[in-house]
Amino acid sequence: MKKVELIHTPALLPLYNLTDKTVIVVDILRATSTMCVAFNTGVNKILPVSLPDECKMFKDFDFIIAAERNAVKIPGFDMGNSPFEFENPFLSGKNIAFTTTNGTKAIKLAKAMNPSKILIGSFLNISAVAKYVMAQDKDAVILCAGWKDKYNLEDTLFGGALLDKLQSWAVMDDDASISAHCLYKQYENNLESIVRKSSHANRFKLLNMQTDDVSFCLQQDIYSFVPEMSGEYIVNTQEEVGSRA
Amino acid sequence: MKKVELIHTPALLPLYNLTDKTVIVVDILRATSTMCVAFNTGVNKILPVSLPDECKMFKDFDFIIAAERNAVKIPGFDMGNSPFEFENPFLSGKNIAFTTTNGTKAIKLAKAMNPSKILIGSFLNISAVAKYVMAQDKDAVILCAGWKDKYNLEDTLFGGALLDKLQSWAVMDDDASISAHCLYKQYENNLESIVRKSSHANRFKLLNMQTDDVSFCLQQDIYSFVPEMSGEYIVNTQEEVGSRA
Repeated sequence: MKKVELIHTPALLPLYNLTDKTVIVVDILRATSTMCVAFNTGVNKILPVSLPDECKMFKDFDFIIAAERNAVKIPGFDMGNSPFEFENPFLSGKNIAFTTTNGTKAIKLAKAMNPSKILIGSFLNISAVAKYVMAQDKDAVILCAGWKDKYNLEDTLFGGALLDKLQSWAVMDDDASISAHCLYKQYENNLESIVRKSSHANRFKLLNMQTDDVSFCLQQDIYSFVPEMSGEYIVNTQEEVGSRA
Repeated sequence: MKKVELIHTPALLPLYNLTDKTVIVVDILRATSTMCVAFNTGVNKILPVSLPDECKMFKDFDFIIAAERNAVKIPGFDMGNSPFEFENPFLSGKNIAFTTTNGTKAIKLAKAMNPSKILIGSFLNISAVAKYVMAQDKDAVILCAGWKDKYNLEDTLFGGALLDKLQSWAVMDDDASISAHCLYKQYENNLESIVRKSSHANRFKLLNMQTDDVSFCLQQDIYSFVPEMSGEYIVNTQEEVGSRA
Protein backbone atom coordinates (compact mmCIF):
# COMPACT_ATOMS: atom_id res chain seq x y z
CA MET A 1 0.00 0.00 0.00
CA LYS A 2 1.24 3.48 -0.80
CA LYS A 3 1.69 6.24 1.76
CA VAL A 4 0.33 9.79 1.70
CA GLU A 5 1.62 12.54 3.96
CA LEU A 6 0.49 16.11 4.50
CA ILE A 7 2.79 19.10 5.05
CA HIS A 8 1.11 22.11 6.66
CA THR A 9 3.46 24.78 5.34
CA PRO A 10 6.50 25.15 3.07
CA ALA A 11 8.53 26.06 6.19
CA LEU A 12 8.36 22.37 7.18
CA LEU A 13 9.52 21.07 3.78
CA PRO A 14 13.14 20.46 4.92
CA LEU A 15 11.79 17.78 7.30
CA TYR A 16 10.41 15.71 4.44
CA ASN A 17 11.70 13.73 1.50
CA LEU A 18 9.84 14.36 -1.78
CA THR A 19 12.14 12.33 -4.02
CA ASP A 20 10.20 10.31 -6.58
CA LYS A 21 6.88 11.13 -4.91
CA THR A 22 3.75 12.69 -6.36
CA VAL A 23 3.41 16.13 -4.81
CA ILE A 24 0.08 17.93 -4.80
CA VAL A 25 0.53 21.66 -4.19
CA VAL A 26 -2.50 23.46 -2.83
CA ASP A 27 -3.24 27.14 -2.29
CA ILE A 28 -7.04 27.22 -2.18
CA LEU A 29 -7.26 31.01 -1.65
CA ARG A 30 -6.32 31.48 -4.38
CA ALA A 31 -3.31 30.55 -6.55
CA THR A 32 -3.95 26.88 -7.35
CA SER A 33 -7.71 27.47 -7.72
CA THR A 34 -7.01 30.36 -10.07
CA MET A 35 -4.56 28.28 -12.12
CA CYS A 36 -7.30 25.71 -12.69
CA VAL A 37 -9.63 28.48 -13.85
CA ALA A 38 -6.94 29.75 -16.22
CA PHE A 39 -6.51 26.35 -17.86
CA ASN A 40 -10.26 25.99 -18.17
CA THR A 41 -10.25 29.30 -20.04
CA GLY A 42 -7.69 27.82 -22.41
CA VAL A 43 -4.41 29.31 -21.16
CA ASN A 44 -1.45 27.58 -22.86
CA LYS A 45 1.02 27.44 -19.98
CA ILE A 46 1.83 29.14 -16.67
CA LEU A 47 5.32 30.00 -15.48
CA PRO A 48 5.47 30.19 -11.66
CA VAL A 49 7.92 32.93 -10.70
CA SER A 50 9.35 33.80 -7.27
CA LEU A 51 9.69 37.59 -7.44
CA PRO A 52 7.51 40.33 -8.94
CA ASP A 53 10.52 42.02 -10.62
CA GLU A 54 11.46 38.77 -12.30
CA CYS A 55 7.84 38.20 -13.31
CA LYS A 56 7.61 41.65 -14.92
CA MET A 57 10.48 40.88 -17.29
CA PHE A 58 8.40 38.22 -19.03
CA LYS A 59 6.15 40.97 -20.44
CA ASP A 60 8.85 41.46 -23.10
CA PHE A 61 8.55 37.81 -24.09
CA ASP A 62 4.87 38.05 -24.84
CA PHE A 63 3.65 36.67 -21.50
CA ILE A 64 0.61 37.98 -19.66
CA ILE A 65 2.03 38.97 -16.27
CA ALA A 66 0.08 38.33 -13.07
CA ALA A 67 1.21 39.26 -9.57
CA GLU A 68 -0.32 39.30 -6.11
CA ARG A 69 1.14 40.12 -2.69
CA ASN A 70 -0.80 40.19 0.57
CA ALA A 71 -4.02 39.35 -1.29
CA VAL A 72 -3.76 42.43 -3.55
CA LYS A 73 -2.85 42.79 -7.26
CA ILE A 74 0.50 44.54 -7.69
CA PRO A 75 0.20 47.78 -9.73
CA GLY A 76 1.76 47.59 -13.19
CA PHE A 77 0.79 43.95 -13.77
CA ASP A 78 -1.88 42.73 -16.20
CA MET A 79 -3.67 40.67 -13.59
CA GLY A 80 -3.88 39.80 -9.91
CA ASN A 81 -4.92 36.47 -8.39
CA SER A 82 -8.73 36.40 -8.41
CA PRO A 83 -10.24 33.39 -10.20
CA PHE A 84 -12.80 35.64 -11.91
CA GLU A 85 -10.08 37.62 -13.70
CA PHE A 86 -8.87 34.40 -15.31
CA GLU A 87 -12.24 33.61 -16.88
CA ASN A 88 -11.56 36.31 -19.50
CA PRO A 89 -11.67 34.57 -22.94
CA PHE A 90 -8.87 36.90 -24.06
CA LEU A 91 -6.49 34.60 -22.16
CA SER A 92 -7.15 31.60 -24.40
CA GLY A 93 -3.89 30.36 -25.95
CA LYS A 94 -1.80 32.83 -23.92
CA ASN A 95 1.21 32.16 -21.66
CA ILE A 96 1.14 33.60 -18.14
CA ALA A 97 4.02 34.47 -15.82
CA PHE A 98 2.58 34.31 -12.31
CA THR A 99 3.86 35.27 -8.86
CA THR A 100 1.82 35.03 -5.65
CA THR A 101 2.49 35.32 -1.91
CA ASN A 102 2.34 31.60 -1.17
CA GLY A 103 1.29 29.31 -4.01
CA THR A 104 4.00 29.94 -6.58
CA LYS A 105 6.63 29.87 -3.81
CA ALA A 106 5.44 26.42 -2.65
CA ILE A 107 5.60 25.13 -6.22
CA LYS A 108 9.16 26.42 -6.71
CA LEU A 109 10.35 24.92 -3.41
CA ALA A 110 8.77 21.54 -4.15
CA LYS A 111 10.38 21.48 -7.59
CA ALA A 112 13.83 21.76 -5.99
CA MET A 113 13.23 18.51 -4.09
CA ASN A 114 13.09 16.03 -6.98
CA PRO A 115 9.50 14.86 -6.84
CA SER A 116 8.19 12.51 -9.50
CA LYS A 117 5.38 14.94 -10.40
CA ILE A 118 3.97 18.21 -9.11
CA LEU A 119 0.20 18.48 -9.47
CA ILE A 120 -1.95 21.58 -9.02
CA GLY A 121 -4.76 20.79 -6.57
CA SER A 122 -7.91 22.68 -5.68
CA PHE A 123 -11.49 21.86 -4.69
CA LEU A 124 -12.41 22.73 -8.28
CA ASN A 125 -10.65 19.60 -9.57
CA ILE A 126 -10.29 17.48 -6.41
CA SER A 127 -11.73 14.20 -7.74
CA ALA A 128 -9.57 14.41 -10.86
CA VAL A 129 -6.52 14.99 -8.63
CA ALA A 130 -7.37 11.94 -6.48
CA LYS A 131 -7.79 9.76 -9.57
CA TYR A 132 -4.52 10.99 -11.08
CA VAL A 133 -2.59 10.48 -7.81
CA MET A 134 -3.82 6.88 -7.57
CA ALA A 135 -2.87 6.25 -11.20
CA GLN A 136 0.76 7.19 -10.46
CA ASP A 137 1.28 4.29 -8.05
CA LYS A 138 3.81 6.36 -6.06
CA ASP A 139 3.85 7.66 -2.50
CA ALA A 140 2.28 11.10 -2.37
CA VAL A 141 2.67 14.31 -0.39
CA ILE A 142 0.09 17.07 -0.06
CA LEU A 143 1.92 20.37 0.30
CA CYS A 144 -0.20 23.19 1.74
CA ALA A 145 1.04 26.62 0.67
CA GLY A 146 -0.16 28.18 3.93
CA TRP A 147 0.14 31.92 4.58
CA LYS A 148 3.67 33.27 4.74
CA ASP A 149 4.91 29.93 6.07
CA LYS A 150 2.18 29.72 8.70
CA TYR A 151 -0.53 27.06 8.87
CA ASN A 152 -3.83 27.89 7.20
CA LEU A 153 -7.27 26.38 7.47
CA GLU A 154 -8.42 26.21 3.86
CA ASP A 155 -5.38 24.35 2.50
CA THR A 156 -5.46 21.89 5.41
CA LEU A 157 -9.18 21.35 4.81
CA PHE A 158 -8.47 20.53 1.17
CA GLY A 159 -5.75 18.16 2.35
CA GLY A 160 -8.30 16.39 4.56
CA ALA A 161 -10.78 16.18 1.69
CA LEU A 162 -8.19 14.70 -0.66
CA LEU A 163 -7.03 12.23 2.00
CA ASP A 164 -10.66 11.17 2.35
CA LYS A 165 -10.69 10.23 -1.34
CA LEU A 166 -7.33 8.43 -1.07
CA GLN A 167 -7.95 6.48 2.13
CA SER A 168 -8.74 3.13 0.54
CA TRP A 169 -5.64 3.42 -1.64
CA ALA A 170 -3.01 4.65 0.83
CA VAL A 171 -1.84 4.54 4.41
CA MET A 172 -2.09 7.94 6.10
CA ASP A 173 -0.71 7.59 9.58
CA ASP A 174 1.24 10.81 10.07
CA ASP A 175 -0.29 13.12 12.68
CA ALA A 176 -0.73 16.01 10.24
CA SER A 177 -2.81 13.81 7.91
CA ILE A 178 -4.90 12.35 10.75
CA SER A 179 -5.67 15.82 12.02
CA ALA A 180 -6.45 17.30 8.58
CA HIS A 181 -8.80 14.41 7.89
CA CYS A 182 -10.57 14.96 11.25
CA LEU A 183 -11.00 18.66 10.44
CA TYR A 184 -12.47 17.85 7.03
CA LYS A 185 -14.87 15.21 8.36
CA GLN A 186 -16.17 17.72 10.91
CA TYR A 187 -16.96 20.29 8.19
CA GLU A 188 -17.47 18.27 5.02
CA ASN A 189 -21.08 19.35 4.72
CA ASN A 190 -20.32 23.01 5.30
CA LEU A 191 -16.78 23.87 4.29
CA GLU A 192 -17.68 27.52 3.93
CA SER A 193 -18.63 27.92 7.62
CA ILE A 194 -15.10 27.13 8.75
CA VAL A 195 -13.29 28.85 5.87
CA ARG A 196 -15.26 32.06 6.55
CA LYS A 197 -13.60 32.08 10.01
CA SER A 198 -10.11 31.74 8.53
CA SER A 199 -7.56 34.55 8.63
CA HIS A 200 -7.49 34.69 4.84
CA ALA A 201 -11.25 35.20 4.56
CA ASN A 202 -10.88 37.94 7.20
CA ARG A 203 -8.05 39.46 5.18
CA PHE A 204 -10.41 39.70 2.16
CA LYS A 205 -13.05 41.32 4.36
CA LEU A 206 -10.62 43.89 5.76
CA LEU A 207 -9.52 44.74 2.21
CA ASN A 208 -13.16 45.09 1.15
CA MET A 209 -12.52 42.52 -1.53
CA GLN A 210 -14.50 40.17 -3.70
CA THR A 211 -15.38 37.66 -1.03
CA ASP A 212 -17.17 35.76 -3.78
CA ASP A 213 -13.69 34.34 -4.35
CA VAL A 214 -14.18 32.22 -1.21
CA SER A 215 -17.45 30.63 -2.37
CA PHE A 216 -16.06 30.16 -5.87
CA CYS A 217 -12.92 28.38 -4.66
CA LEU A 218 -14.90 25.97 -2.45
CA GLN A 219 -16.91 24.53 -5.34
CA GLN A 220 -16.04 20.88 -5.88
CA ASP A 221 -15.34 19.09 -9.14
CA ILE A 222 -16.33 21.72 -11.65
CA TYR A 223 -13.24 20.70 -13.65
CA SER A 224 -11.99 17.25 -14.50
CA PHE A 225 -8.38 18.01 -15.49
CA VAL A 226 -5.17 18.23 -13.43
CA PRO A 227 -2.56 20.85 -14.31
CA GLU A 228 0.99 19.69 -13.60
CA MET A 229 4.59 20.86 -13.83
CA SER A 230 6.48 20.05 -17.00
CA GLY A 231 9.98 21.48 -16.86
CA GLU A 232 9.66 25.07 -15.66
CA TYR A 233 6.00 25.40 -16.70
CA ILE A 234 2.62 24.36 -15.43
CA VAL A 235 0.65 22.81 -18.25
CA ASN A 236 -2.63 21.04 -18.67
CA THR A 237 -1.77 17.80 -20.45
CA GLN A 238 -5.29 16.50 -20.10
CA GLU A 239 -6.70 19.44 -22.02
CA GLU A 240 -10.34 19.23 -21.10
CA VAL A 241 -10.82 22.91 -21.68
CA GLY A 242 -14.26 24.31 -21.13
CA SER A 243 -15.35 21.47 -18.88
CA ARG A 244 -16.90 23.77 -16.30
CA ALA A 245 -20.32 22.51 -15.32
CA MET B 1 -9.06 41.69 25.09
CA LYS B 2 -5.84 39.67 25.04
CA LYS B 3 -4.76 37.43 22.18
CA VAL B 4 -3.70 33.78 22.30
CA GLU B 5 -1.90 32.05 19.44
CA LEU B 6 -0.85 28.45 18.91
CA ILE B 7 2.42 27.30 17.31
CA HIS B 8 2.36 23.72 16.04
CA THR B 9 6.10 23.06 16.20
CA PRO B 10 9.34 24.77 17.27
CA ALA B 11 10.33 24.87 13.57
CA LEU B 12 7.75 27.65 13.11
CA LEU B 13 9.00 29.75 16.07
CA PRO B 14 10.95 32.20 13.85
CA LEU B 15 7.60 33.33 12.37
CA TYR B 16 6.32 34.53 15.75
CA ASN B 17 7.12 37.19 18.29
CA LEU B 18 7.20 35.96 21.90
CA THR B 19 8.48 39.19 23.48
CA ASP B 20 6.71 39.97 26.75
CA LYS B 21 4.15 37.20 26.18
CA THR B 22 3.21 34.30 28.41
CA VAL B 23 4.43 31.13 26.67
CA ILE B 24 2.99 27.75 27.58
CA VAL B 25 5.28 24.93 26.45
CA VAL B 26 3.61 21.58 25.99
CA ASP B 27 5.01 18.12 25.33
CA ILE B 28 2.18 15.85 26.45
CA LEU B 29 4.04 12.60 25.61
CA ARG B 30 5.91 13.10 27.82
CA ALA B 31 8.34 15.80 28.96
CA THR B 32 6.00 18.46 30.32
CA SER B 33 3.67 15.87 31.85
CA THR B 34 6.65 14.19 33.50
CA MET B 35 7.95 17.51 34.84
CA CYS B 36 4.61 18.07 36.57
CA VAL B 37 4.85 14.61 38.13
CA ALA B 38 8.40 15.41 39.32
CA PHE B 39 7.28 18.58 41.09
CA ASN B 40 4.36 16.74 42.65
CA THR B 41 6.91 14.27 44.04
CA GLY B 42 8.76 17.22 45.56
CA VAL B 43 11.65 17.76 43.16
CA ASN B 44 13.41 21.05 43.94
CA LYS B 45 14.22 22.28 40.45
CA ILE B 46 14.73 21.02 36.90
CA LEU B 47 17.42 22.21 34.52
CA PRO B 48 16.39 21.72 30.87
CA VAL B 49 19.48 20.82 28.85
CA SER B 50 19.91 20.56 25.08
CA LEU B 51 22.41 17.73 24.70
CA PRO B 52 22.88 14.42 26.52
CA ASP B 53 26.65 14.96 26.92
CA GLU B 54 26.02 18.33 28.54
CA CYS B 55 23.32 16.80 30.75
CA LYS B 56 25.69 14.05 31.94
CA MET B 57 28.16 16.61 33.31
CA PHE B 58 25.65 17.72 35.92
CA LYS B 59 26.02 14.36 37.70
CA ASP B 60 29.21 15.82 39.24
CA PHE B 61 27.19 18.71 40.67
CA ASP B 62 24.83 16.48 42.57
CA PHE B 63 22.03 16.51 40.01
CA ILE B 64 19.92 13.51 39.13
CA ILE B 65 20.43 13.14 35.37
CA ALA B 66 17.54 12.19 33.08
CA ALA B 67 17.75 11.72 29.32
CA GLU B 68 15.50 10.41 26.59
CA ARG B 69 15.92 10.22 22.82
CA ASN B 70 13.43 8.68 20.39
CA ALA B 71 11.16 7.71 23.30
CA VAL B 72 13.87 5.61 24.99
CA LYS B 73 16.00 6.26 28.11
CA ILE B 74 19.66 6.82 27.21
CA PRO B 75 21.98 4.25 28.86
CA GLY B 76 24.18 5.69 31.60
CA PHE B 77 21.55 8.13 32.90
CA ASP B 78 19.65 7.84 36.18
CA MET B 79 16.27 8.19 34.56
CA GLY B 80 14.40 8.38 31.28
CA ASN B 81 11.19 10.28 30.56
CA SER B 82 8.31 8.14 31.85
CA PRO B 83 6.04 9.91 34.35
CA PHE B 84 5.99 6.79 36.55
CA GLU B 85 9.76 6.95 37.12
CA PHE B 86 9.33 10.43 38.59
CA GLU B 87 6.88 9.29 41.26
CA ASN B 88 9.81 7.78 43.20
CA PRO B 89 9.85 9.51 46.64
CA PHE B 90 13.66 9.36 46.53
CA LEU B 91 13.48 12.40 44.21
CA SER B 92 12.00 14.68 46.86
CA GLY B 93 14.23 17.74 47.35
CA LYS B 94 16.54 16.73 44.49
CA ASN B 95 17.65 18.77 41.45
CA ILE B 96 17.27 17.18 38.02
CA ALA B 97 19.15 17.88 34.77
CA PHE B 98 16.82 16.79 31.98
CA THR B 99 17.19 16.39 28.24
CA THR B 100 14.47 15.03 25.92
CA THR B 101 13.89 14.79 22.16
CA ASN B 102 11.38 17.62 21.92
CA GLY B 103 10.20 19.19 25.18
CA THR B 104 13.45 20.53 26.62
CA LYS B 105 14.45 21.80 23.16
CA ALA B 106 11.18 23.77 22.85
CA ILE B 107 11.75 25.30 26.30
CA LYS B 108 15.31 26.37 25.43
CA LEU B 109 14.23 27.90 22.10
CA ALA B 110 11.34 29.80 23.68
CA LYS B 111 13.64 31.17 26.38
CA ALA B 112 15.86 32.76 23.72
CA MET B 113 12.90 34.84 22.49
CA ASN B 114 12.32 37.08 25.53
CA PRO B 115 8.91 35.92 26.70
CA SER B 116 7.45 37.33 29.89
CA LYS B 117 7.07 33.86 31.39
CA ILE B 118 7.48 30.24 30.30
CA LEU B 119 4.94 27.89 31.86
CA ILE B 120 4.98 24.09 31.81
CA GLY B 121 1.63 22.84 30.53
CA SER B 122 0.07 19.39 30.54
CA PHE B 123 -3.39 17.89 30.87
CA LEU B 124 -2.38 17.03 34.45
CA ASN B 125 -2.45 20.72 35.43
CA ILE B 126 -4.46 22.31 32.58
CA SER B 127 -6.99 24.27 34.66
CA ALA B 128 -4.23 25.70 36.84
CA VAL B 129 -2.37 26.74 33.69
CA ALA B 130 -5.47 28.48 32.28
CA LYS B 131 -6.03 30.34 35.57
CA TYR B 132 -2.37 31.39 35.74
CA VAL B 133 -2.31 32.57 32.10
CA MET B 134 -5.39 34.74 32.68
CA ALA B 135 -3.84 36.20 35.85
CA GLN B 136 -0.84 37.45 33.83
CA ASP B 137 -2.93 39.84 31.72
CA LYS B 138 -0.51 39.41 28.79
CA ASP B 139 -0.92 38.00 25.31
CA ALA B 140 -0.14 34.30 25.31
CA VAL B 141 1.36 31.71 22.99
CA ILE B 142 0.91 27.95 23.22
CA LEU B 143 4.08 26.29 21.91
CA CYS B 144 3.64 22.64 20.97
CA ALA B 145 6.91 20.68 21.19
CA GLY B 146 5.83 18.38 18.35
CA TRP B 147 8.00 15.46 17.24
CA LYS B 148 11.38 16.39 15.76
CA ASP B 149 9.92 19.66 14.47
CA LYS B 150 6.89 17.97 12.93
CA TYR B 151 3.26 18.52 13.97
CA ASN B 152 1.86 16.13 16.54
CA LEU B 153 -1.68 15.32 17.59
CA GLU B 154 -1.42 15.21 21.37
CA ASP B 155 0.21 18.62 21.84
CA THR B 156 -2.24 20.24 19.41
CA LEU B 157 -5.13 18.59 21.27
CA PHE B 158 -3.86 20.05 24.53
CA GLY B 159 -3.60 23.44 22.80
CA GLY B 160 -7.24 23.15 21.76
CA ALA B 161 -8.27 22.19 25.29
CA LEU B 162 -6.41 25.14 26.80
CA LEU B 163 -7.88 27.52 24.19
CA ASP B 164 -11.30 26.23 25.18
CA LYS B 165 -10.65 27.37 28.75
CA LEU B 166 -9.28 30.75 27.60
CA GLN B 167 -11.92 31.60 25.00
CA SER B 168 -13.93 34.02 27.13
CA TRP B 169 -10.72 35.83 28.11
CA ALA B 170 -8.88 36.09 24.81
CA VAL B 171 -9.26 36.46 21.07
CA MET B 172 -8.05 33.39 19.19
CA ASP B 173 -8.36 34.08 15.50
CA ASP B 174 -5.20 32.54 14.04
CA ASP B 175 -5.89 29.51 11.86
CA ALA B 176 -3.72 27.21 13.97
CA SER B 177 -5.79 28.03 17.07
CA ILE B 178 -9.14 27.69 15.27
CA SER B 179 -8.10 24.30 13.95
CA ALA B 180 -6.69 23.03 17.28
CA HIS B 181 -9.89 24.08 19.02
CA CYS B 182 -12.01 22.23 16.41
CA LEU B 183 -9.91 19.09 16.89
CA TYR B 184 -10.33 19.27 20.66
CA LYS B 185 -14.10 19.86 20.51
CA GLN B 186 -14.47 16.81 18.28
CA TYR B 187 -12.67 14.57 20.79
CA GLU B 188 -13.16 16.27 24.16
CA ASN B 189 -15.13 13.33 25.54
CA ASN B 190 -12.64 10.76 24.33
CA LEU B 191 -9.16 12.21 24.00
CA GLU B 192 -7.61 8.78 24.24
CA SER B 193 -9.32 7.50 21.07
CA ILE B 194 -7.51 10.05 18.91
CA VAL B 195 -4.20 10.03 20.82
CA ARG B 196 -4.04 6.23 20.48
CA LYS B 197 -3.95 6.80 16.70
CA SER B 198 -1.04 9.25 16.96
CA SER B 199 2.44 8.45 15.71
CA HIS B 200 3.84 8.79 19.21
CA ALA B 201 1.43 6.24 20.68
CA ASN B 202 2.41 3.95 17.79
CA ARG B 203 6.07 4.58 18.57
CA PHE B 204 5.46 3.36 22.15
CA LYS B 205 3.67 0.30 20.80
CA LEU B 206 6.52 -0.56 18.42
CA LEU B 207 9.01 -0.21 21.27
CA ASN B 208 6.85 -2.48 23.43
CA MET B 209 6.75 0.26 26.03
CA GLN B 210 4.61 1.25 28.97
CA THR B 211 1.65 2.47 26.99
CA ASP B 212 0.11 3.26 30.39
CA ASP B 213 2.06 6.48 29.92
CA VAL B 214 -0.57 7.58 27.37
CA SER B 215 -3.54 7.10 29.72
CA PHE B 216 -1.61 8.66 32.59
CA CYS B 217 -0.71 11.78 30.61
CA LEU B 218 -4.31 12.34 29.46
CA GLN B 219 -5.68 12.66 33.00
CA GLN B 220 -6.97 16.17 33.62
CA ASP B 221 -6.39 18.38 36.63
CA ILE B 222 -4.78 15.94 39.01
CA TYR B 223 -2.41 18.80 39.97
CA SER B 224 -3.18 22.42 40.74
CA PHE B 225 0.28 23.98 40.39
CA VAL B 226 2.11 25.43 37.37
CA PRO B 227 5.87 24.92 37.04
CA GLU B 228 7.61 27.84 35.33
CA MET B 229 11.04 28.99 34.23
CA SER B 230 13.02 31.09 36.66
CA GLY B 231 16.41 31.94 35.21
CA GLU B 232 17.85 28.72 33.80
CA TYR B 233 15.68 26.45 35.93
CA ILE B 234 12.13 25.19 35.99
CA VAL B 235 10.70 25.63 39.46
CA ASN B 236 7.35 25.19 41.12
CA THR B 237 6.71 28.49 42.88
CA GLN B 238 3.21 27.49 43.86
CA GLU B 239 4.53 24.51 45.78
CA GLU B 240 1.36 22.47 46.16
CA VAL B 241 3.34 19.28 46.45
CA GLY B 242 1.38 16.11 46.97
CA SER B 243 -1.81 17.57 45.55
CA ARG B 244 -2.52 14.54 43.40
CA ALA B 245 -6.17 13.58 43.74
